[in-house]
Amino acid sequence: MENFADVKYVLDGFLFIIMGVLVMWMAAGFAMLESGLTRSKNNATVLTKNLALFAISCMMYYFVGYNLMYGDGGSIMGSFSTISMKTAADAAYPAAADFFFQVVFVATAASVISGSIAERMKLWPFLIFTVILSGVIYPIQGHWSWGGSELGGVMAGFSDFAGSTIVHSVGGWAALAGVLILGARKGKYGKDGSVRPIPGSNLTLATLGTFILWMGWFGFNGGSQLALGSKADIDGIALVVADTNMAACAGAIMAAVLTQLIYKKVDLTMVLNGALAGLVSCTAGPDLGMMVAFIEGIVGGALVVFAVPMFDKLRIDDPVGALSVHLVAGIWGTLAVGIFNPEVTIMAQVKGIVIVGAFVFIASFVVWKILDLIVGLRVSEEIEVQGLDIHETGLETYPEFKRA
Amino acid sequence: MENFADVKYVLDGFLFIIMGVLVMWMAAGFAMLESGLTRSKNNATVLTKNLALFAISCMMYYFVGYNLMYGDGGSIMGSFSTISMKTAADAAYPAAADFFFQVVFVATAASVISGSIAERMKLWPFLIFTVILSGVIYPIQGHWSWGGSELGGVMAGFSDFAGSTIVHSVGGWAALAGVLILGARKGKYGKDGSVRPIPGSNLTLATLGTFILWMGWFGFNGGSQLALGSKADIDGIALVVADTNMAACAGAIMAAVLTQLIYKKVDLTMVLNGALAGLVSCTAGPDLGMMVAFIEGIVGGALVVFAVPMFDKLRIDDPVGALSVHLVAGIWGTLAVGIFNPEVTIMAQVKGIVIVGAFVFIASFVVWKILDLIVGLRVSEEIEVQGLDIHETGLETYPEFKRA
Amino acid sequence: MENFADVKYVLDGFLFIIMGVLVMWMAAGFAMLESGLTRSKNNATVLTKNLALFAISCMMYYFVGYNLMYGDGGSIMGSFSTISMKTAADAAYPAAADFFFQVVFVATAASVISGSIAERMKLWPFLIFTVILSGVIYPIQGHWSWGGSELGGVMAGFSDFAGSTIVHSVGGWAALAGVLILGARKGKYGKDGSVRPIPGSNLTLATLGTFILWMGWFGFNGGSQLALGSKADIDGIALVVADTNMAACAGAIMAAVLTQLIYKKVDLTMVLNGALAGLVSCTAGPDLGMMVAFIEGIVGGALVVFAVPMFDKLRIDDPVGALSVHLVAGIWGTLAVGIFNPEVTIMAQVKGIVIVGAFVFIASFVVWKILDLIVGLRVSEEIEVQGLDIHETGLETYPEFKRA
Repeated sequence: MENFADVKYVLDGFLFIIMGVLVMWMAAGFAMLESGLTRSKNNATVLTKNLALFAISCMMYYFVGYNLMYGDGGSIMGSFSTISMKTAADAAYPAAADFFFQVVFVATAASVISGSIAERMKLWPFLIFTVILSGVIYPIQGHWSWGGSELGGVMAGFSDFAGSTIVHSVGGWAALAGVLILGARKGKYGKDGSVRPIPGSNLTLATLGTFILWMGWFGFNGGSQLALGSKADIDGIALVVADTNMAACAGAIMAAVLTQLIYKKVDLTMVLNGALAGLVSCTAGPDLGMMVAFIEGIVGGALVVFAVPMFDKLRIDDPVGALSVHLVAGIWGTLAVGIFNPEVTIMAQVKGIVIVGAFVFIASFVVWKILDLIVGLRVSEEIEVQGLDIHETGLETYPEFKRA
Repeated sequence: MENFADVKYVLDGFLFIIMGVLVMWMAAGFAMLESGLTRSKNNATVLTKNLALFAISCMMYYFVGYNLMYGDGGSIMGSFSTISMKTAADAAYPAAADFFFQVVFVATAASVISGSIAERMKLWPFLIFTVILSGVIYPIQGHWSWGGSELGGVMAGFSDFAGSTIVHSVGGWAALAGVLILGARKGKYGKDGSVRPIPGSNLTLATLGTFILWMGWFGFNGGSQLALGSKADIDGIALVVADTNMAACAGAIMAAVLTQLIYKKVDLTMVLNGALAGLVSCTAGPDLGMMVAFIEGIVGGALVVFAVPMFDKLRIDDPVGALSVHLVAGIWGTLAVGIFNPEVTIMAQVKGIVIVGAFVFIASFVVWKILDLIVGLRVSEEIEVQGLDIHETGLETYPEFKRA
Repeated sequence: MENFADVKYVLDGFLFIIMGVLVMWMAAGFAMLESGLTRSKNNATVLTKNLALFAISCMMYYFVGYNLMYGDGGSIMGSFSTISMKTAADAAYPAAADFFFQVVFVATAASVISGSIAERMKLWPFLIFTVILSGVIYPIQGHWSWGGSELGGVMAGFSDFAGSTIVHSVGGWAALAGVLILGARKGKYGKDGSVRPIPGSNLTLATLGTFILWMGWFGFNGGSQLALGSKADIDGIALVVADTNMAACAGAIMAAVLTQLIYKKVDLTMVLNGALAGLVSCTAGPDLGMMVAFIEGIVGGALVVFAVPMFDKLRIDDPVGALSVHLVAGIWGTLAVGIFNPEVTIMAQVKGIVIVGAFVFIASFVVWKILDLIVGLRVSEEIEVQGLDIHETGLETYPEFKRA
């Protein structure tokens, strides 16, 4: 360490590593949230899915996706020619640190999907979809924004700081495509239009999962400053982290107040999803100040309270509310940047949302469909009733406890 | 980054952020500990309470409390005139980073209360109390010490590094006031003076909560060095972190040995509270060396073993032992600084403990009393028997598992 | 902060602290994993054991072990003469930060043992063994490698970056010695050679434990770079962290694929242990690049799938698979450095594995045997059937839930 450039190099790299560790930790949050909000007969499958999707995402992104996203290349996608994990002598930051921070993001999109298709999709088709998502779909759309290609200029001006669209909505669109093909869980919707609530098995762990995600989000948004080694950067990160916390708080309390007003009770699962929606809502623009974060969060928390029953009305069955949290609030958060950041136009944001959404939804729909035709996405009715665990993992999650 | 002042600026800000993330994480620890040590019929309410109290504390502290605590002003409280989240060009550290580290502390005091009043207080009165605590009571007393006013000199010489008194005892005194008004849980104390143990529903999660708090405490105490960018600061932080760990270890083992000697069994819940008491005990003086930390922890661990039955004898019902851990060990930890730090007098410590305690207890008592008169603090006997969850949140925490 | 040496001093110290916090957090991971993979009637004892072993390890290492490991001294062990927590004026890093990073490693070895001897060993003999392990056995063998003595040259050339052998195998050998004396759990092995599976009580928490360990491992391996304040160091840490993640991913997926092929189901507990085996496998050489990490992890994940039934065939009963994960994969990971690192010979690695293994196994065997003769290691058959919790801690872990 001989000059200030070296200090900056070290600090920038350290930011990637520490914040990347927090983002990796979100995988545990998704696993706890999803298993807490689903029935215990499917929990071992949920857990297997969540751990395996993280592992697959990281490996596919290393071998394929990272190149397609950040490699030199055309406007559509990058190439394998330029990315290596070797740090060039004149590099501005450690290559492996940058890769580490990027790779832990990929699993987030897949985790969103995992929640929506829970309790009825077979394990392996989901994991194969994850291979495609993390290796191809996610990195290609990422190349257009964070990869810098602007899709040949079409997406110029689109602004998404940490991924309301690029990560969360991507997961949401892919999930929506899957859910439309997969259909609702057996018994969720009556022929008379009634909606049967299917309570989660373990709200303590769902709450823990929410806290884990909240914590990890400081890395998700804070690390997306992408540098630490200057006064402007640490000022930026500090504001991002304070904003992120504010948005989560606002989302949670908004959901608490609304469910109290509407249902006369504070619905804990809505409060959890309200906090998460607040987080997603401020992810595209977590650098716009505390009052903006407050508004982003308030609206996000409100959206989730109305989106969850809306999806049920549409008979789109989403066991954990991931579409409401990641897709709906992801769209809102991206639009919010157009509203609150004077340097960004709403039009550019809408364009980005639509282009990314159309690409991901269509690509995912095709992949899901092919998987459905070849191996079948859905477990048999018998397995769904008995629970996926016995057939997919051969284990019970809580074998000693008597079912009510 | 062009000079060493810039490096210091970045490092100081980064310390606040990373340590603040660890302190935020303590909210999850309190949630797991409290739900693990209470009955499952009340767990969804416990979880809702813990997440909502964190969200409310952060918002109230931003809009009100931070100003009263650190704003320029008189000896009693600060004003709204001076605090903004904008970092001045000549600031020594990023304003938002300082705010973030301060804001995550506030919820700790409220979390302490949450445990003591569990299983019988209505959700909303508690949340309203949290509004007052985090917006007014906590920041006003904080203004006297960390805010620098010394209450016009009365509290000169009082030393509380990370908040044995300023955070933990404050929670404890407010909790005590609440519990005295609220009364014990139905069935806890027999008319013949007998004490009925009410076991916690999930000791695994209570243990997890303790580990989370232990981890978060490194941020709580280590970050309270308030700067990283000098050799003296990193030496200080390192010693604080090593001391904090030592005190937790000593507290846990002391509780294990004592319960083995007294009850012929190692009481896990006492070991957990012993570790936490060790942590609270070293929070006022975590910078005094490993042997002092060892003694702080040993005494803290012992205190909790005797304080828990003492409160029961006094018929002060504290479901999770928060008064023993945060109030009793908080007082001890504050006194310990007077004993072991030659620059601090015991008298100054006693004065601080009494002044802060009297203010918080009286202010809290008044607020609780008003809330009790207007909306009523306590759920009906029927709801207490059935469990708060069905009435407060409309959800069961573990709906699939059969009760024994 | 006046020169670049100061900056390096601060950064090196901060690395120790942050990474040390992550390593401490692994204690929670071991606790969740072990309680999730054992029966609920023994969980409170498991939890007490895991918290107490961490506390004891840290205290013993401070009072004794740290001196024996890093104090000046002969080739066999260090002395009490030189280690203090005071940072010398000309020190290269904060003494307390170095101590903190070292002390949190010790509990890992003890945690490994805890899993293997679960569900049948008395609490106190295990804790007394932990006293000896952390105070004497672990630090003496650590003195030969990390302590620099090379055992008088015999262990020259042995390379173990973060402790595949020095930490994980050490725990494994000590566990093996204990298990051989202790015997299998009642009912595990039939007289006809049959093996009865004893399912874990809570796979959600076992999965959470695995994620915690995974997260903590970034500190374990990343911090073992031992310095942050240079471009080479941050490059090194970044590669280590990316490698560590890759190895965990590869191990998990290898175990998933193999169990699918062999058993026609994806065994979640094997996937968890596969991830952990991947982590252990890359711990001796996490600095060798992504492809090496991939191979280390793949082999580690495969080893665990075959080692678990192998130990059962040998009637060595290991409730959580700790021997497969920490001993078998620990040996593999140490050998892998000899294979993939051109500067290290396989012979040097074998020598290190054998010397450390022989010392730890024999020393542990003697200590276990003495404990068995004096106080008895094993609970009575009656207590084993009823569960250890009622007798050891007097508490039930899940008192409200009906057993199936």
